[in-house]
Amino acid sequence: MKQGHELERHLADETRDYLEKAEPLRRSRPWDRWIQASLGLRNYWYPAALSRHLEEGGFKTVQLLGEEILLTRQNGKLYAVQDRCCHRGVRFSKRPLCITKETLTCWYHTWTYNLDDGKLRCVLNEPESALPGKVGIKTYPLQETKGIIFAFIGDIEPPDLKCDVPPGFLEEDVSLYLAEPYEVKSNWRLGCENGFDPGHHFIHNWSKFVLDSGYPMTFGFVSKKGEEHTVMDFVADEPGPKGFTRGSQEWELIFEATIPGRRPGEEDVKFVSPGMKGKTPEQLAALFKDAPPVTVGLWLPCGLRVENFPFPGITHYEFYVPKDEHTHSYFQFGAKRVKTPEEAAEWSENAGYEMHDVPAVQGFTTDDVFAREGMEKFYAEEDGWYRERLYRPDVEITMWRKFASEHARGIQTPEHANGSR
Amino acid sequence: MKQGHELERHLADETRDYLEKAEPLRRSRPWDRWIQASLGLRNYWYPAALSRHLEEGGFKTVQLLGEEILLTRQNGKLYAVQDRCCHRGVRFSKRPLCITKETLTCWYHTWTYNLDDGKLRCVLNEPESALPGKVGIKTYPLQETKGIIFAFIGDIEPPDLKCDVPPGFLEEDVSLYLAEPYEVKSNWRLGCENGFDPGHHFIHNWSKFVLDSGYPMTFGFVSKKGEEHTVMDFVADEPGPKGFTRGSQEWELIFEATIPGRRPGEEDVKFVSPGMKGKTPEQLAALFKDAPPVTVGLWLPCGLRVENFPFPGITHYEFYVPKDEHTHSYFQFGAKRVKTPEEAAEWSENAGYEMHDVPAVQGFTTDDVFAREGMEKFYAEEDGWYRERLYRPDVEITMWRKFASEHARGIQTPEHANGSR
Amino acid sequence: MKQGHELERHLADETRDYLEKAEPLRRSRPWDRWIQASLGLRNYWYPAALSRHLEEGGFKTVQLLGEEILLTRQNGKLYAVQDRCCHRGVRFSKRPLCITKETLTCWYHTWTYNLDDGKLRCVLNEPESALPGKVGIKTYPLQETKGIIFAFIGDIEPPDLKCDVPPGFLEEDVSLYLAEPYEVKSNWRLGCENGFDPGHHFIHNWSKFVLDSGYPMTFGFVSKKGEEHTVMDFVADEPGPKGFTRGSQEWELIFEATIPGRRPGEEDVKFVSPGMKGKTPEQLAALFKDAPPVTVGLWLPCGLRVENFPFPGITHYEFYVPKDEHTHSYFQFGAKRVKTPEEAAEWSENAGYEMHDVPAVQGFTTDDVFAREGMEKFYAEEDGWYRERLYRPDVEITMWRKFASEHARGIQTPEHANGSR
Repeated sequence: MKQGHELERHLADETRDYLEKAEPLRRSRPWDRWIQASLGLRNYWYPAALSRHLEEGGFKTVQLLGEEILLTRQNGKLYAVQDRCCHRGVRFSKRPLCITKETLTCWYHTWTYNLDDGKLRCVLNEPESALPGKVGIKTYPLQETKGIIFAFIGDIEPPDLKCDVPPGFLEEDVSLYLAEPYEVKSNWRLGCENGFDPGHHFIHNWSKFVLDSGYPMTFGFVSKKGEEHTVMDFVADEPGPKGFTRGSQEWELIFEATIPGRRPGEEDVKFVSPGMKGKTPEQLAALFKDAPPVTVGLWLPCGLRVENFPFPGITHYEFYVPKDEHTHSYFQFGAKRVKTPEEAAEWSENAGYEMHDVPAVQGFTTDDVFAREGMEKFYAEEDGWYRERLYRPDVEITMWRKFASEHARGIQTPEHANGSR
Repeated sequence: MKQGHELERHLADETRDYLEKAEPLRRSRPWDRWIQASLGLRNYWYPAALSRHLEEGGFKTVQLLGEEILLTRQNGKLYAVQDRCCHRGVRFSKRPLCITKETLTCWYHTWTYNLDDGKLRCVLNEPESALPGKVGIKTYPLQETKGIIFAFIGDIEPPDLKCDVPPGFLEEDVSLYLAEPYEVKSNWRLGCENGFDPGHHFIHNWSKFVLDSGYPMTFGFVSKKGEEHTVMDFVADEPGPKGFTRGSQEWELIFEATIPGRRPGEEDVKFVSPGMKGKTPEQLAALFKDAPPVTVGLWLPCGLRVENFPFPGITHYEFYVPKDEHTHSYFQFGAKRVKTPEEAAEWSENAGYEMHDVPAVQGFTTDDVFAREGMEKFYAEEDGWYRERLYRPDVEITMWRKFASEHARGIQTPEHANGSR
Repeated sequence: MKQGHELERHLADETRDYLEKAEPLRRSRPWDRWIQASLGLRNYWYPAALSRHLEEGGFKTVQLLGEEILLTRQNGKLYAVQDRCCHRGVRFSKRPLCITKETLTCWYHTWTYNLDDGKLRCVLNEPESALPGKVGIKTYPLQETKGIIFAFIGDIEPPDLKCDVPPGFLEEDVSLYLAEPYEVKSNWRLGCENGFDPGHHFIHNWSKFVLDSGYPMTFGFVSKKGEEHTVMDFVADEPGPKGFTRGSQEWELIFEATIPGRRPGEEDVKFVSPGMKGKTPEQLAALFKDAPPVTVGLWLPCGLRVENFPFPGITHYEFYVPKDEHTHSYFQFGAKRVKTPEEAAEWSENAGYEMHDVPAVQGFTTDDVFAREGMEKFYAEEDGWYRERLYRPDVEITMWRKFASEHARGIQTPEHANGSR
C-alpha cells in the first residue's frame, strides 16, 4: 500500500502555507472542490440501509446526497427508485404499492413503473398512453453484502464496490457487527474531518469508555513538525480505494500539557487529563507500546477505518453518508477476522455488542457526534470555510481536503439532488 | 346549461399539445395565469366561516387569499375588517374591543374605526386628530345565507353571490348539511385539480366508505381519447357562474386493469381493486346503470359540485378556499332538496350527519386531502408546475386551467395580501 | 437637568411634519438611523445578567446585540468572552473548561485563551504553534454593581457606566429589587417606544394592578397640541447619560372619551374605562394631584425610568436589551432610597417583592410585553417602519427617534454581531 513519502510531502507542501496564519484566509485555496461538496461526492457507492431494515415485501425511504429514494425488497430482490412520480411529483412512499413483484404503482394516478429500470411500464387507467417506455423515474444500482445495502449515486458505470470502501472491509473472513445507524446534525465533511483529525483526541479524555477502562488517551496524536507526511501513507491507484492511513506508532504521544505563565516569574501550570491521572508517563507510554498499533485511515468517499480499536484485533469502521447539506447518516461497524461460520455468527450476533457497540458506539463516538454538531453552525451559517484559522496539526486535514479535491469522481449539486430521470 | 361541444373542443385542442410529452415542458403555456394564482383568484366571493362560528358580540379571525380578516357580529349585523390597525399594525384580534356596536377600537392606542366602512371615526385619546375620515382599514363585503358567511375579496363591485358558487347551491328548496371546515396543507389549486381529476378515483378504492358500502369504484372515470370535450359541458355566461360539468354516464368505466408482461411470452397481470372484488364486470356496470348519474362540476373560483353523491338525491359541494400559498380551508356541504321547513331542519340537523358527514366527509374526502397534501412539496418546492409530465386524461385538468386562466376576474398578488386600505 | 425648551422645540419641529399624514411615508426621514438599528446601538453598556446567575466557577451564555457571549466567574473575577473558538468556530459553552482560573480551553482542540484579553495563550497539543499571542477571541468589558452584571458592546474606550443608565440608578443610597429578567419576542426598539409612548396607557386600564388597586389610569397622558416640547426635558451632555424626562403634572389627563355620532342627530357615546368607573372626574383629578408626580424618562441606549411607580417613593427601571433582531431581554428593577444596610436588605430581599414585583412586574408590565409583541409582525415582516401612519401624540416618539439617531454612539450591524476579533 505504501507509495513512498514523496507524494505525501507534495500534499503537505501544497497546503502548509494555509496554516498558522493570524488572519482568516479570504481567497481561493487548493481544496476549493471540497468546499463545494456540501451535498457529498457523486459517483460513489454509499451504505443506504442495513439488510435487516428490509424484509420481504417491505419498504424504506432513505435520503442520500439530497436524493429521496424508496427501497423495497420484492421476491427477494432489492430495488431502489426515486421516491417521486414523474407525473405530478407524488411520493410513492406515502402509500407504497407493488401490484406485481416487478412493478411499483403510484397510489394516485396508477402510473406503474418497472422496479428494475424505472421505466413507465403502463398506466392502469389509461392503457393507451404513449408515455410507457418513454418516461420514467431514476433508479439506483444496489449491492447487498455483509448485511449492508449499498446504493450507487451517480451517472457513470459503477465501479467495483471494493473501490469505495476502506480496504479489507469486504474481505471474506471478516465478520461485521452492525450497529444501528443514526442521523447526525452536521454536514458529512465535518464527520470525515473529525474522524481523521489528529488534534481531536482531547474530547475523548472524558469519553465513558476511556474513563471506565483506563484506555490510554492523549491530548492529540500529533505528528512532528515538518514530518507530517512521514506518518501518512496514501493510496490513489485507479480505480480505488483511495485514501490515507496513519499509524499511532509514528505519532507523538502527549500525556501532559502545559499552560505557560504569562508574566515573568509566573509559574506554568501542568495539566493531566482525568484518564491519565495516577499513571506515570512511562506507564502510559508502555500501555501504547504493548498495544498493537491503532491505525487510522480515511477513504473516499466517506469511510473511516480504525484498526485495533476499541480492542486489539477489532477494526472499527464508520461512514458519514450525506443526507442533505446539514445532516448525515452515521453508520458504524465492528469487524473481526474469523475462521468459521460459527465464529462469524458469534461475533455479529453476540460478542460484537459487548466488544464494539458498548465501548465504541455507546461509549466513545457519541463524543465525536457531539464535536461534529458543535462545528455545524460555524460552517453552515457563519462562513466557517473561509473564516477558520487552522493550526499546524490541521495539515493532515488540509492534505485530505486537497487529496479529496483532486481524486473525487464528482461533486453532488442541488440540480442532481432535485433532478428527474 | 349546455353550450355545444365546439367550445369544449376548442379548449381541448388548445391544451392537448402539452400532454403525453416525454420531456417536461420548460416554456410558456396556455394556463400561465393559473400558475401565477398561488394566492387565489381575486374579485370573488368565498366562504369565510359558518354562521354558527359567530354568535352575537363574537369575534373570529380568518385568512383569505393571504389577507388577515377579523369577523364580528354586532347588534345582529356582520362585519369583516382588516385585522391590522393602520397606525402601527397592531392586530385588533389580540384584544378585540367594540365600545359601541358600530365601532372597533384598537386596544393599544384607542384608534376607533367604523365597522361598516373601515374609516377612522375618532381617536379616544386625541380627539383633535386630523386623521379621522381620512384614513382607515380595509373592509370586506359579506353575505350570510344558508348558515354560511361569504366574504368578497377584491376591488370591483361585487357581483351577485350566485355567480360565484356552483349552480343550484343557493336555491331555496335546498337544505344544506354544514360539515365543519378544516385546514388542508396544500395550495388551493391542488384541491380544484384533485376534485375534478378523472384519473384520481384510484385513491378511493381504499376509502372507508367504499370498502364499507360496496360503493362502485373504478380505476378512473376516464373519457375516450379524442372525445374528452364531449363529456364536458362548460358555462361561461357573464357574469357567472362559470364552470364545467361532466357526467358519469359518459365516462369509460374501468373495473379491471392490466400490467402487461415485458418480455415475449411473459404473461399480463390482471388487477382488481379491493372494493370491486367478488363482483363481475357486468354486476359492477349494473350498479352504475341503476344509480342516478354522478355528475361532477368545477366552478370558479374554487367550488366543486358532485350530484348524487354519496347517495342518490344528495349533492356534495366543496370549496377550496385559499388561506395562503401553502394552505386552504376545506368547506364541505351536503345538499338535499326539501319541501318543508321541517324536512329542511331534519336534514341539516340530523340526517345529514349520517348521510353526508359519515360517508363523504369522514369516509371519503379524507383520501382527497391526503392526495392534495401529497402533491404539495412538488408544486411548492420542486418547480412542479414546470416539471410535471401530464398524460392524456389530464386534458380535463388542462382544459380547466385554460378556462380559469381565461375567465378569472383577477389574480391575488402578495401586494394585495399585504396591502393597506 | 433642564436645558431650556428651545432644544426640545427644535426636535418637535423637525419631526412634526411626519405626523398626521393620511398616506404612509415612503421616503427618508429624520430618524433613519433609528430604523437601521434593528440589532441595537453599539458602544454602550448593557445589563447582561444578574450577579446571582453566576456563582464562583459558574458559566452562563447570553446574547447581546446579536453577539454570543460566555460569562464566567473565576476566582471571584468576572469574564466575558466571545462564545466561539477562532480555530473552527466551536462554542466553548457546550463543554466549558477552565483548566486554570485565568484561561479558557476549547474542549475540542485544546486552544487555550486568556480570559481577560482573549488572546490565545497556548495550544495544549501543539506547544510550538506560532499562533499564541497573535490570534484570539473577542472579550467584553464587564462591571458588576448593585447585583447586576453590565457588559460593554463596542469598539471604543468604555465610558463611565453612569453615562449609559438613567440618572440616579447607580446612586449609593438606592437599594434595588432585582426582578428576574425574561425574553420578550419583539425588537428592542418597540420596548423603548412602548415604554415612553404617551398614548399607550390605554392598555393598562385592564392591567391587574390597576383593577385591583384603583390606581388612577387614563386614556393616555397626552400633552397639549403644539406644546409637546414643553413637557419634555432632554439631556444630551457629553458623555452622558442622554435622555428625556417628562412629568405627569404637565400631561393632559383624559378620564373620559367620546365616540362621536356619525350622522346628524346621532348621539355621541361617552366611554369610561373600567378602573375609572364610579369616580367623578374631580375625584380622579384629586387622586393625581395628591400623588407625587409620575415622571417617565427614556435614556440611551435602552433604559426607562418611572419615578413614583408603582407607589410613591419607588422608582421603576426597565431595560430592553437587544438579543437579536426579533427578541430582547427584559430587565426590571424596583428602586428605593434607603438609609442603612438593613433597610437596603429589607427592600431588596423582602419588601420589594410585594411593592414592586407583584404590582409592577406581575400586574402591569406584562401588558406592555403583550403590546410590544403585538407590533412585532408589522415592523418585522410588513414594512412597518415605512408603512406606519403616526398621529400627533406620537411626536414624543419621533422626538426620541430623532434624538437617538443624533446621539447614538453607533449602530450594531450583522457584521459586528457575526465578526471575529
